[in-house]
Amino acid sequence: MASYVLDNGFFLLNDGSGRLVRGSLRVENGKIAKIARSIPKVKGEKRTDLAGQTVIPGFVQTHVHLCQTLFRNFADDLELLDWLRERIWPFEGAHNEKSLYASARLGIAELLAGGTTSILDMGTVRHTDAIFEAAKSMGIRAFIGKCLMDRDDNPPTLRESTKAALHENLELLQRWHGQANDRLRYASAPRFLLSCTEGLMRELKGLSDANEMIVHSHSSESRAEVEAIRKLYGSENIEAFHRLGLTGPRLVLAHCIHLSEAEKKILAETSTRVSHCPSSNLKLASGLCSTPELRKLGVSVSLGADGAPCNNNLNMFQEMRLASLLQKPHHGPTAMPARDVFEMATIEGARALGIEKDAGSLEIGKKADLVAIDLLEPSVAVEASEKEPEHVYSALVYSASPQCVRQTWVDGRSVFRAGSYPGTTVREIVLEAMRERKKLFARLRK
Amino acid sequence: MASYVLDNGFFLLNDGSGRLVRGSLRVENGKIAKIARSIPKVKGEKRTDLAGQTVIPGFVQTHVHLCQTLFRNFADDLELLDWLRERIWPFEGAHNEKSLYASARLGIAELLAGGTTSILDMGTVRHTDAIFEAAKSMGIRAFIGKCLMDRDDNPPTLRESTKAALHENLELLQRWHGQANDRLRYASAPRFLLSCTEGLMRELKGLSDANEMIVHSHSSESRAEVEAIRKLYGSENIEAFHRLGLTGPRLVLAHCIHLSEAEKKILAETSTRVSHCPSSNLKLASGLCSTPELRKLGVSVSLGADGAPCNNNLNMFQEMRLASLLQKPHHGPTAMPARDVFEMATIEGARALGIEKDAGSLEIGKKADLVAIDLLEPSVAVEASEKEPEHVYSALVYSASPQCVRQTWVDGRSVFRAGSYPGTTVREIVLEAMRERKKLFARLRK
Repeated sequence: MASYVLDNGFFLLNDGSGRLVRGSLRVENGKIAKIARSIPKVKGEKRTDLAGQTVIPGFVQTHVHLCQTLFRNFADDLELLDWLRERIWPFEGAHNEKSLYASARLGIAELLAGGTTSILDMGTVRHTDAIFEAAKSMGIRAFIGKCLMDRDDNPPTLRESTKAALHENLELLQRWHGQANDRLRYASAPRFLLSCTEGLMRELKGLSDANEMIVHSHSSESRAEVEAIRKLYGSENIEAFHRLGLTGPRLVLAHCIHLSEAEKKILAETSTRVSHCPSSNLKLASGLCSTPELRKLGVSVSLGADGAPCNNNLNMFQEMRLASLLQKPHHGPTAMPARDVFEMATIEGARALGIEKDAGSLEIGKKADLVAIDLLEPSVAVEASEKEPEHVYSALVYSASPQCVRQTWVDGRSVFRAGSYPGTTVREIVLEAMRERKKLFARLRK
Repeated sequence: MASYVLDNGFFLLNDGSGRLVRGSLRVENGKIAKIARSIPKVKGEKRTDLAGQTVIPGFVQTHVHLCQTLFRNFADDLELLDWLRERIWPFEGAHNEKSLYASARLGIAELLAGGTTSILDMGTVRHTDAIFEAAKSMGIRAFIGKCLMDRDDNPPTLRESTKAALHENLELLQRWHGQANDRLRYASAPRFLLSCTEGLMRELKGLSDANEMIVHSHSSESRAEVEAIRKLYGSENIEAFHRLGLTGPRLVLAHCIHLSEAEKKILAETSTRVSHCPSSNLKLASGLCSTPELRKLGVSVSLGADGAPCNNNLNMFQEMRLASLLQKPHHGPTAMPARDVFEMATIEGARALGIEKDAGSLEIGKKADLVAIDLLEPSVAVEASEKEPEHVYSALVYSASPQCVRQTWVDGRSVFRAGSYPGTTVREIVLEAMRERKKLFARLRK
């Protein structure tokens, strides 16, 4: 890939310095090669005028379900178990390759348009290739795994044998891990301990070590789940993960709301990663993860939007805003200040996925996963200034929205610009999704 | 004004029926004249194809501070008293006519672009004409009042004598109440009981009765305020309003978080209006208003974004979403379902302002305060259907954003369309606001 230069921007480095640098940025071979007040012209090199826009590192969402995007606004105001049993599980079970591809594309379209450049995705049980294909063509950085559900008491449309589950899991790992210039990775996704046998969980440990593979699961989301785990495992949720050998820096657990003191200590001591999903936790009435407390203990906490039907957006601006605001009534108005939250949404997410050397900040040699933000939208109206970067952090966390996103790059490639995606239009993606949703619901009624 | 017809839309009536009607809507003399499957052509009458967009009644925000819009992202992550004393009060005190006009225009631009067509605004102490002028020229329906602060212990840049406060209050009432075809009204705005003398509050009662004038104040926002009221009045906050004769359907109180059972009963029995401001209550760490409980007691609860620096948006979609989501962890996932919240954002707001015969729903004879929403944004992707209006309610409350707003009308006049306002551009409004903010901060440093 040829090199190019972005001129006349403000670059929020997010390298720990808090600095906002006015000037230019050069991308070479998909990586950040230079950031400086001015970059001399090189013949034939393309230059783009950012006209004062602010460039940030792309957001990293550490818990999403692209397979559920089609079900948005079709599963609301319901009890958690009704939500799963009457809607989400039957819906997931009715997916075919085409509907899953359309669901993933719609989700990725929203993610890229909202400045998210990396995701950790939990698929459904079947057709996982379709999610990889969508991520491959749309250009997002994605860790994806088929959902593992091998216990007998799983819903019949989704459950499978331990052997079949592990077999396909391995096949997908071999097929996709490291593809597209390492932009795609496989991440095993046991749904939660209640869905999986101990035997399966123990196998994943070896697979994770041998392949430097993320294991992605849910934990301690609802009180009912915590109770059920106690009955099944005779221990708390995180203790069970720990005993199975899975805790550690390659385990990413969504939610972690209802935790004992001993469990918090395990998370901190093993560097297990927590993905906080504030909108989803509200919508499903799950409760509130005490992120200031976890962070104080040294636990790595990043952010995710979860699935579209329990959010109902895939919008990191919204998750950042809530990750800050929700803690304030409990911990005071100075809790979770804007800069801390912005770091959770970027570099902490990169750490959770083990890609902190490649993503999460604007530093020389990192991959060019960038987002150009216009802070002159009337809902923001902040002029960036090197002297007062704190107003830019406030603007990004408390006021900005996908409406401010002008362009998104992954690996230096433009993947979203002014409402368009390379090779397709937003309308085409939305219309395909709505067609496939209709067909999926028709299959369900049969 | 000539009549015109909007064709090929879905009209969410919001008249209590829950119906979504496909077809056309005619506007005559600024009012809704007809809604039908099809409306026969009349020679010379303009027709606009909505291409399947959903038309809703404009949102009614019952608590905003347009004077604070300039301070957005300049007063974050602070304790409440620091926030007021070190930022908001000095900032308000430094306003001149030009900066206040720019602040109000910027706020109104965001409001109209986000589908809000009516507001109840609390100004600052001086230059209230500038807010009226901005509302007049931008075309929003607005109840506006100068902020009343006549106690001696108010900050010196804002306090004034009781006589001076009441004198200007009356002058503004006489100058603006009913102007612009009754689109502008005066609403007296005693800041809160801690800012005002009993004598002033008693005068407002007579003024309100004689002029059918709203009284707009804050109450029971923080525990410290509740404590201070107890010391000053020897009673709870709402009890003090009640004793002063002010409770009733023309009193709109923002927040109402920390209430005794007796106070809740007073609110219900007197039909006093509560304006719930969920984002602001989180950001200032105030707490959570128990809206399901108040509604069960029969209290009218509507919504407002409060000021930009404590939100940091003026976005009714966001307030609706939070008004639902925040209650679910406390009252279960079925609490505050989408349709109830949509009604709070529209018809309940109209009731609070006494304009329910003119606004808040799409009914024949009501003023044409309309918003055209495109639900095909990728972050929503819902096809409207007469048979399943519940998905449209979900989409509006849980997924939609100002990005979906295509056009806004007030009194049948188009006041926002595709990023533009009649007679001006969004950039002009934003740049003027940023210029005036710089000058205001320069005045403060002197």
